[in-house]
Amino acid sequence: MSFSPLIRQLIDAFRILPGVGQKTAQRMALQLLERDRSGGQRLAQALSQAMDGIGYCRSCRSLSEEEICHLCSDLRRDESLLCIVQGPMDVYAVEQTGYRGRYFVLKGHLSPLDGLGPETIGIPELLGRINQGAFREIILATNPTVEGEATAHYIAQILADQELLISRLAHGMPLGGELEMVDGGTLSHALAGRRPIQV
Amino acid sequence: MSFSPLIRQLIDAFRILPGVGQKTAQRMALQLLERDRSGGQRLAQALSQAMDGIGYCRSCRSLSEEEICHLCSDLRRDESLLCIVQGPMDVYAVEQTGYRGRYFVLKGHLSPLDGLGPETIGIPELLGRINQGAFREIILATNPTVEGEATAHYIAQILADQELLISRLAHGMPLGGELEMVDGGTLSHALAGRRPIQV
Repeated sequence: MSFSPLIRQLIDAFRILPGVGQKTAQRMALQLLERDRSGGQRLAQALSQAMDGIGYCRSCRSLSEEEICHLCSDLRRDESLLCIVQGPMDVYAVEQTGYRGRYFVLKGHLSPLDGLGPETIGIPELLGRINQGAFREIILATNPTVEGEATAHYIAQILADQELLISRLAHGMPLGGELEMVDGGTLSHALAGRRPIQV
Repeated sequence: MSFSPLIRQLIDAFRILPGVGQKTAQRMALQLLERDRSGGQRLAQALSQAMDGIGYCRSCRSLSEEEICHLCSDLRRDESLLCIVQGPMDVYAVEQTGYRGRYFVLKGHLSPLDGLGPETIGIPELLGRINQGAFREIILATNPTVEGEATAHYIAQILADQELLISRLAHGMPLGGELEMVDGGTLSHALAGRRPIQV
């Protein structure tokens, strides 16, 4: 191996990033060293500040450097809607749609075989949050996977005795998709959930 | 935009990496924050150490944290061979081939229109290095592009009056290539440079 120890250490460190293998890590390290040292320093500082400074919002449990994140402390948002997602990344995805209610972030999904029970993923905190607020509707936006569906079903059950509208993201054809490429399950949902066209 | 300031800063910082756009940068930032904070800290430290600590070898001018890099200070290497390349990345590429002579790294290639003359790319230092050593052969391993060829030609000319064997990397078919896919120029070189087969 012909890299010097510091370069080798940098290449190894880059490999922890998702989708980065040996060749990409080499290119990243050498490009920064040759062309953008100040950018590299900025990245080092941003990383260090973020890893140290970012915790979890006490209200929605999303990633935030404040005790209460900027989404939760924004008073203009709709206090009657609560959207439940599986992770912080999902908050940003839902936020792109223009949704302006509240969020609650679970720590993943239920998976009893892996030891992930209601306590581990944050169901007690979710119930606390719901009792604290004045929600009218709870939107279950867990992933449309077996585990995500099971998690949504579990939450719907424990909330059944409360006076809340509980909804789930619609299943159906993705925009721009082709009928022949869509799996049977999705197409069944799309057919069963068909909507009258208003002309 | 719904990311908190520290996360946004981290995402922006990741975008300086080659091949990393907005979506990839988001995924990198959130994955480190959610799953591998210690890895993120290691990356921050490795970056900071590398950007501060790595300079250029005084002998071959490749990237190195030592004044003389480990390739130049290795006494077992062939002192009679000098391989001239356009950048540090090329040293690692040539090193993979099993070459065990010396290196000299230019700062890119000659490009008079861009103001890159012999002084800018390090020709005076190259001549100093050649006079200092006891080389028998100089291998011109600049890229097989118009600028790389011009740079190789220029160096060959100024070394013409010295008693040195000056060679250039062979052109020809890449291994695993297909005849019909190779460009005409490469095929011409491959034909002109054909070699007798020893049976």
